Amino acid sequence: GEHGPRGHVPTFGSLQAASCSHLAGVSGHEVPGAGPHLSPPAPRCVPPPGPLSLCSLLCPAPAPRTPLPPTQTPGEEENGSTGFHEAVSAHLGWFEGSQIVIISNTLWVGERVPCLTYGMRGMISASIEVHGPARDLHSGNEGGVFSEPLADLTKVLASLVDARANILVPGFYDAVRPGMLDAAMRRLPASHEFSLEGYRAQIGVRRLTAGRSEWDLLAARWCLPSLSVVDVRVGSGDDPARSAHYRFGPTRFSVIPRAAVGQVAIRFVPAQRPESLVEHLRAHVAHEFAKLRTGNEIAVKVHSIGDWWEADEASPYTKLAERVVQEEWSTTPLLVREGGTMPVARKLEKMLGAPVLMLPMGQSSDNCHLANERIQRVNLLRGKNVVKRLLMEAPRAKAAQ
Amino acid sequence: GEHGPRGHVPTFGSLQAASCSHLAGVSGHEVPGAGPHLSPPAPRCVPPPGPLSLCSLLCPAPAPRTPLPPTQTPGEEENGSTGFHEAVSAHLGWFEGSQIVIISNTLWVGERVPCLTYGMRGMISASIEVHGPARDLHSGNEGGVFSEPLADLTKVLASLVDARANILVPGFYDAVRPGMLDAAMRRLPASHEFSLEGYRAQIGVRRLTAGRSEWDLLAARWCLPSLSVVDVRVGSGDDPARSAHYRFGPTRFSVIPRAAVGQVAIRFVPAQRPESLVEHLRAHVAHEFAKLRTGNEIAVKVHSIGDWWEADEASPYTKLAERVVQEEWSTTPLLVREGGTMPVARKLEKMLGAPVLMLPMGQSSDNCHLANERIQRVNLLRGKNVVKRLLMEAPRAKAAQ
Repeated sequence: GEHGPRGHVPTFGSLQAASCSHLAGVSGHEVPGAGPHLSPPAPRCVPPPGPLSLCSLLCPAPAPRTPLPPTQTPGEEENGSTGFHEAVSAHLGWFEGSQIVIISNTLWVGERVPCLTYGMRGMISASIEVHGPARDLHSGNEGGVFSEPLADLTKVLASLVDARANILVPGFYDAVRPGMLDAAMRRLPASHEFSLEGYRAQIGVRRLTAGRSEWDLLAARWCLPSLSVVDVRVGSGDDPARSAHYRFGPTRFSVIPRAAVGQVAIRFVPAQRPESLVEHLRAHVAHEFAKLRTGNEIAVKVHSIGDWWEADEASPYTKLAERVVQEEWSTTPLLVREGGTMPVARKLEKMLGAPVLMLPMGQSSDNCHLANERIQRVNLLRGKNVVKRLLMEAPRAKAAQ
Repeated sequence: GEHGPRGHVPTFGSLQAASCSHLAGVSGHEVPGAGPHLSPPAPRCVPPPGPLSLCSLLCPAPAPRTPLPPTQTPGEEENGSTGFHEAVSAHLGWFEGSQIVIISNTLWVGERVPCLTYGMRGMISASIEVHGPARDLHSGNEGGVFSEPLADLTKVLASLVDARANILVPGFYDAVRPGMLDAAMRRLPASHEFSLEGYRAQIGVRRLTAGRSEWDLLAARWCLPSLSVVDVRVGSGDDPARSAHYRFGPTRFSVIPRAAVGQVAIRFVPAQRPESLVEHLRAHVAHEFAKLRTGNEIAVKVHSIGDWWEADEASPYTKLAERVVQEEWSTTPLLVREGGTMPVARKLEKMLGAPVLMLPMGQSSDNCHLANERIQRVNLLRGKNVVKRLLMEAPRAKAAQ
C-alpha cells in the first residue's frame, strides 16, 4: 500500500503539503488518549505565504502509543514562531526516542539537480534608533539649527557596510571557520547547476560585488557574515501612533521627525558567536555616533537571534538521505549550504537529542519567503516520496550504526 | 456698528476663524449675480489640522458689485493647494483693483510681543530614489553579494549635511543676500522675546548647532538655507503596492528592498534661485553616487518649489500694518522673518499686482502645522480687530501714497 506494511512504519502525523512555514508551530489538534495537549497559538497568518514545503515531521522510534499531531501551523514562522520552543519543551514526552528531525525549508542551488543542505547561517535582527527633539518639528521653522535624528541615523547606517557589501564593523569577520565550502565544491562545479552570470541575471542586479568566481560568490552567500539594512522608518520604534502625525499629503516634507529607526539583518556563520557580534556592533555604532558629537541619543536593540546550523556529514542519516534522494531523482544530490537561517534546527537538536536532516524541495527560482512564491509539482511529489522513504528506512539506518 | 459705516468699508467675504490652512483654496460658494463661479476642490482635509489662522482676504477697492466668496478651504494647504493658482487665474476679474493681499499663516517669534513677518524662506521638496535588483530579495539567501539600494541611499543622504546641520552640497550657500537680519535686530534684542536657551528648551533638543548667539540662531533659521532629510521609505516611490509585500511580522528583517526613497526638504532664501539649487543638488548626488561605483541607479525628483517672499518695508501698507498692530496691542510690533514658506505669497503678488501683508497671529509655541496645534483666544480676537482695521484703512493708506 501507499504507506508500506504498517508494522514497519513509525506512526507519524498527517503528511500535508502546505504553503507557508516549515516546522514552526505545533498545532492544537487534540490527540485521543494523549494526556496534555498543545493549545494552538492564535492564527496570525498574513500574506504573502512563506516557503512552500512539505510539512516537517518528527520521526519517533519506537512508535508512540498515540499518533503525533501534525507539527505545522501555516504562517507562524513569518510571525517569529512565538511559543514554539515552549510548546515543544512542555511536551517532550511526545517526542521521546526521536531519531531524526526532518525540516524542509531550504532550496536547491539551481533548477535541475536535487540538493541536500548541510549548513545554514545564523541571523541577528537588530534595530538602531536615534532620538532627538521632544517632538516632531517643522522643517521651515526649525530646519538648520539642530542635529536631526534621521540625518544622524543615515551616517551611522552608512558606516556599517561599504559599497562592495563588505561589513565595516571591526571584528565582524572574526571566528569564521575556513574550509566550509569544501564539501559543496566536491560535486557542485561538475553539475553546472550554478554560474555567476545565471545567478546575477536571476536576482536582477547589474553587478555582483562578491569576487570573480562561483567559489567566491558561494563563499559570500553561505560562509561569510553579511549585514543588510532592510528598513528605515521615521518616528520612535515604541511609538504606536508614530505614523499618524505626519503621514499626510505633500507637506509630509515639512516635518522633521523627532526619532528614526533603522532595521538591520545580520547573517553569521560557524563558528561565530552571536553575542560577540552584537558586542562588536554596539561598540561600532557607539563609536561612529560619538564622532558626530550631536545632542541626540542612540540605542541598538536586538530583536532576535537564531543560531547557525551544520549537519554531521558522517551521520548515518545524512548518508541515508543522500541515498534516498539519489534513488528518487536518479542523480547524485549536490551538497549545499544556505545563507538563510533556521533557528529551530539547533534548538530541536538540543531539546530532542536528535540530528536535523535539512531536505530542500524547491528550485532556487521559487522566490521563497517572498511575493509570488511557487513550487514545481514534480518537486512536491518526489519530495513527498523522499520523506516517506526516510521515515521508513530511518530505523534501519539507526540499527546499522 | 461692527463693520463701521457701510460706505467706507470694502465689501469682503465672511471673516471666519478656521483651523487649518491659510489662503490656500477658493471655496465654491456660489456668488449671487456673479458670472462664472469656482468649483470647490474635492474636500480632502486630513488630520492633523494646519495652523490656526483667521481667513485670508483679498481687499478690493473699489468695492466689487458682488460680495467676494470666502477664500478659505480648510485642509487644502496640507494637500498642496492643488488648483489654487488655476482657480484664481481663471477668475482674475473678481480681484480687479485689489490693493493688498492679507495672509495670516506665520507666527510670532516669542510669546508676548506681536510681530509682523517681513520675509520667508522658499522650499524645494525633492526625493532621492535608488533602484537595484529586479525584485525584493531575501537577506539570508542573497545578503552580502550585491550593493543594496538602501545601503547606497544612506551613504548619499549622509553626504548632504554634516552633524552641525551645515549643508555639504557645493554651491548651496551661493547668492545668499547679506544683511537680511538688520530690520529684525533693530527692535528684537530689547524685547527679550527670544533667547537661545528658551528656544532650545522649547523645541526640546539638548544642543543647538547654530552658533553662539541669538543673532546666529535667527540667521540660520531665517536667512540661510537648510536641508532636512524628513523621511526614508523602502520600495519604489511609484510602486503603490510597495508596502504589501514585506510589511508583516518580525521577518520583515529578512527582506532586502529592491528600491529605497529618501525625502528631502530644502529651504532657501533671498536671492537664491531654486533652479540653480536643484542643479547643485543633482550634481552633488550624482557625484556621491558615482563614488560608490555600484550597479544601482539613482534619481533626484523635484516634487514642488515654493519661492521665498519679502515685504517692501517702505510700502504704505507695511507702515499701516505696523501702526494698526501697535494700536491694537499697545506695543510696537517686532519685525520678524520666518523659516517656513508661503508659496502663494509671491504668486498672488504677481497675479494680482498687489503686495502681500503677512500678519502672524499665534505664539511661537503654538505647534503650528503639527499635532496639538492651538491658538490663544486673545490672539484670535485682537487679530480679527487688526484685520478689520486694515481693511477699513487701506484705501486711505493708498490715497496718502
